[in-house]
Amino acid sequence: MSRSINPELDLTISRLIRAPRSLVWNAWTDPSSFEQWWIPEPARCKVTEMELRPGGAFVTQISENGGDFQPHLSGCFLAVEDGERIVFTNALVGGWRPAEQPFMTAIITLQDHPDGTDYAAHVMHKSNADRNMHEEMGFYDGWGTVIGQLAKLVERRVQ
Amino acid sequence: MSRSINPELDLTISRLIRAPRSLVWNAWTDPSSFEQWWIPEPARCKVTEMELRPGGAFVTQISENGGDFQPHLSGCFLAVEDGERIVFTNALVGGWRPAEQPFMTAIITLQDHPDGTDYAAHVMHKSNADRNMHEEMGFYDGWGTVIGQLAKLVERRVQ
Repeated sequence: MSRSINPELDLTISRLIRAPRSLVWNAWTDPSSFEQWWIPEPARCKVTEMELRPGGAFVTQISENGGDFQPHLSGCFLAVEDGERIVFTNALVGGWRPAEQPFMTAIITLQDHPDGTDYAAHVMHKSNADRNMHEEMGFYDGWGTVIGQLAKLVERRVQ
Repeated sequence: MSRSINPELDLTISRLIRAPRSLVWNAWTDPSSFEQWWIPEPARCKVTEMELRPGGAFVTQISENGGDFQPHLSGCFLAVEDGERIVFTNALVGGWRPAEQPFMTAIITLQDHPDGTDYAAHVMHKSNADRNMHEEMGFYDGWGTVIGQLAKLVERRVQ
């Protein structure tokens, strides 16, 4: 259903997670697990809304250096396919309403791998300028770090 | 699934169409029928893409005064519920990619009515300024006119 990757507009990152797909899915869709990996440590994450259905709100907050929680992501789920795929955007907020600061749509895909789960994120932007800004803001480091945190969390649960 | 109407941010319009819901649905989802009512006459409409599924592209063109076809709407379907509801936005384009010029999300609802079909459009904006701009651009006249054209088309098919 999704289009192929456009290197001018998109950023992608993937990683093998040594845990079954169901565990990865649970760590994504259970807010108390999600909060443990979504933001690079030592900053903390709070899930304010996670309505896992098309049009559902997806809102997280961040606390850095022990400070108050501040807005982080305010977006909308576009597709939630059990155990396989989650699509969300910050171009819309809950109920599909246009957002104040649209920037990206992300397609998260989980596929079986002989050693666990192949976890992939495909992040789409409206322009090459936005794509490059996201890369310069530290896309690979940031998303790589939190996917690493996700892997650590679920790989611990396998044992 | 959709949120309630927010009068500060939303515009709504509805009309009784004296035809069964299936005929109204067909006039929406068949491109050659859709082209006959989507743009106020005498301007002409061409459907370039109408992929009726979440993430599907929705692109129309307009020709005014017999001139070349120009871009009109470039958007993305968010939900397509057979015979009942269509949700689309121009905050995203096909494949859910963020759009260059986001402005609105529309929820089109068809409900049975003793005399035909209750047709309703709920149009959501990100801000009161956008909502008011849309109203001043002629929302009620424009959407009212084309829903009238839709009614005329399908009511003719009943007889």
